[in-house]
Amino acid sequence: MQLLETTFWSAGGSRHGMAERLGFSKSKANALIAGLVAQGLLAESGLQRSSGGRRPENLQLNGSLGVVVGIDIGATSLDVAVLSPDLAVLAHRAEAADVKRGPGVVLARVRVLMRELLAQCGRSARDVIGIGIGVPGPVNFEIGQLVNPPLMPAWDGFSIRDYLREDYAAPVFVDNDVNLMALGELWRLQRSLTNFLVIKDGTGIGCGIVCHGVVYRGAAGSAGDVGHICVDQEGPRCHCGNVGCVEVMAAGPAITRMAVEAAEAGDSDALAECLRTHGHIDAQHVGEASRAGDAAANDIIQRAGSLIGQMLASVVNFFNPSHVFIGGGITRIGPLFLAAVRQSVYQRSLALSTRHLEIQYTPLGAQGGVIGAGVLAMHETLKARGVAP
Amino acid sequence: MQLLETTFWSAGGSRHGMAERLGFSKSKANALIAGLVAQGLLAESGLQRSSGGRRPENLQLNGSLGVVVGIDIGATSLDVAVLSPDLAVLAHRAEAADVKRGPGVVLARVRVLMRELLAQCGRSARDVIGIGIGVPGPVNFEIGQLVNPPLMPAWDGFSIRDYLREDYAAPVFVDNDVNLMALGELWRLQRSLTNFLVIKDGTGIGCGIVCHGVVYRGAAGSAGDVGHICVDQEGPRCHCGNVGCVEVMAAGPAITRMAVEAAEAGDSDALAECLRTHGHIDAQHVGEASRAGDAAANDIIQRAGSLIGQMLASVVNFFNPSHVFIGGGITRIGPLFLAAVRQSVYQRSLALSTRHLEIQYTPLGAQGGVIGAGVLAMHETLKARGVAP
Repeated sequence: MQLLETTFWSAGGSRHGMAERLGFSKSKANALIAGLVAQGLLAESGLQRSSGGRRPENLQLNGSLGVVVGIDIGATSLDVAVLSPDLAVLAHRAEAADVKRGPGVVLARVRVLMRELLAQCGRSARDVIGIGIGVPGPVNFEIGQLVNPPLMPAWDGFSIRDYLREDYAAPVFVDNDVNLMALGELWRLQRSLTNFLVIKDGTGIGCGIVCHGVVYRGAAGSAGDVGHICVDQEGPRCHCGNVGCVEVMAAGPAITRMAVEAAEAGDSDALAECLRTHGHIDAQHVGEASRAGDAAANDIIQRAGSLIGQMLASVVNFFNPSHVFIGGGITRIGPLFLAAVRQSVYQRSLALSTRHLEIQYTPLGAQGGVIGAGVLAMHETLKARGVAP
Repeated sequence: MQLLETTFWSAGGSRHGMAERLGFSKSKANALIAGLVAQGLLAESGLQRSSGGRRPENLQLNGSLGVVVGIDIGATSLDVAVLSPDLAVLAHRAEAADVKRGPGVVLARVRVLMRELLAQCGRSARDVIGIGIGVPGPVNFEIGQLVNPPLMPAWDGFSIRDYLREDYAAPVFVDNDVNLMALGELWRLQRSLTNFLVIKDGTGIGCGIVCHGVVYRGAAGSAGDVGHICVDQEGPRCHCGNVGCVEVMAAGPAITRMAVEAAEAGDSDALAECLRTHGHIDAQHVGEASRAGDAAANDIIQRAGSLIGQMLASVVNFFNPSHVFIGGGITRIGPLFLAAVRQSVYQRSLALSTRHLEIQYTPLGAQGGVIGAGVLAMHETLKARGVAP
């Protein structure tokens, strides 16, 4: 149903705006809207700011449809959120996790968090109309299972759907974490951009691709696996078997390794101090040290940013996106990392590919994963009910 | 018009087949077909092989609509063909050319060839219903002009449309050469593949991208500019300003340079003999020398194939295509080059990306450019007449 689809992607709007956007006559739009309101799918809530005449009603997906749950499983983090049908976050919890401990442990915790967050919103399992889950590995989207995930072997072929079916009647949709970040940004942008990339740089490095206005998953569902693009033929060996992969040289663990080396070699007082105080060093610490004037920290950031930029230069030459959004744990380094990435891309890519290219941190930030998961859940649920294409 | 579009892409078919493909009832399909036949757009010609019952009629685009002209301008070659509305090549001429001599010289020759080939088919300028042109540089598709083409600066902003308008009333469509090769393969495949790449390796290296079943041109029309992906941080400087671009290390001129060096250094009797006899060495000579057992020629092929494969590995990890088709002058080396490319890609890409990946030479071969240009001309002409979407 085109009108519902448009309402979903445009995050609501006036009757008049909808009709205009779809090229419908006022009377046709009114009839369709009346039908969807009668079915309980759309609701007219609140008033939009007036543009002069009578205040138009604001159409939205009907809040009383229920809620969706968005789950973002990272390699070392877990985010769960309850969202309204128009993707407002009603409750959200983020905590550390270890995906290597396997689906039993991680999903048991997901179950607990879902119950707590639903209770917090005064909702029950029966109110959940769709569940979206992002996982940090390649997914067969049709069957909702991970396929040979390098970071999480215990999850290979495990049915997340069956597991959650014990508590929830709602349909469960599983996708790669960075595909969901891309879907979330597409929704945030109200589909105003049609060709862009979302890079997640955390424990691993992945890329979500939006092409012709929809998320592109590739012939075998593994599109966007940019972490294993080679950036140094003489580089260190990666767990994938090849050498010089950007992931082994510039993802979170590489930043930590370089920082610990600098601390232990006596190259950086700030990083040594950090290691003593916290027992570890992460991207945020390196960013703080750099901002405090630490040269070694600054050097690490430049090196990592330059390598990410080198990989992105290849990808930008090939794909010519309008925007590249960068998210994931590494963004906690701060603006210096982004500057290093930009410099490297602009230096290595062709002028025509970068003339109008924007490189930014993901506007949805740390909530991008759960919002994307919510968008997937809501959109697929509308589709499953036969009301979205 | 969906039915006409389907007839175009499926290169004809039976009434029954069309109805089935489109999910139309027999009577609806018959009514639509009758309308299109009356408008002179479709014709029922010949008989398909029977599958048992009454022989179904074979629907095609009406041959009496006229002809299209496909023009493929390479850096050092020129191909012109006259094609029927269903893209059968009625006449074709291929010859050497030098795009650097500028649009005046090259297009004057195009004009002569068009006149000769049309006469050869017993057609005149008035029979031409569309003209498609592929050029070896970035194109602004909407205005049909080259934008900062590195190989052909004299063409920057030149209006090919206006030039041909003096002789032809038919609309003129201009696109990048390798985008047209991709469009040609999409047509040959009857759109049965939706995500694949076409690499042209000749004087330069470019890539045509088919994503979600349509040619993808990128945010600024420069998608597929893979020639300047870096494959060696210590490599030679490219005309683009960067170092180690795959184009400067593995395109036709690099093969020639390596072969001449081997001949002059006394490393290869076969290549030295070839240089004496022909005064130059090209990809085909290197292939022949290698097949005759020349180690230096073999080494050159391995080196170039490995570098192309290294670039492709990055692209395959990112895009996860089902097929990569390789065309252009370098294919004249023969099967050894393809084997070297494959080996390099399978070694460097992730298993999930290559498990079902096919790497082949372009099935349309040397005619791919003019057929692609013909597909563009015919499809855009149908669109311009308001009968295709």
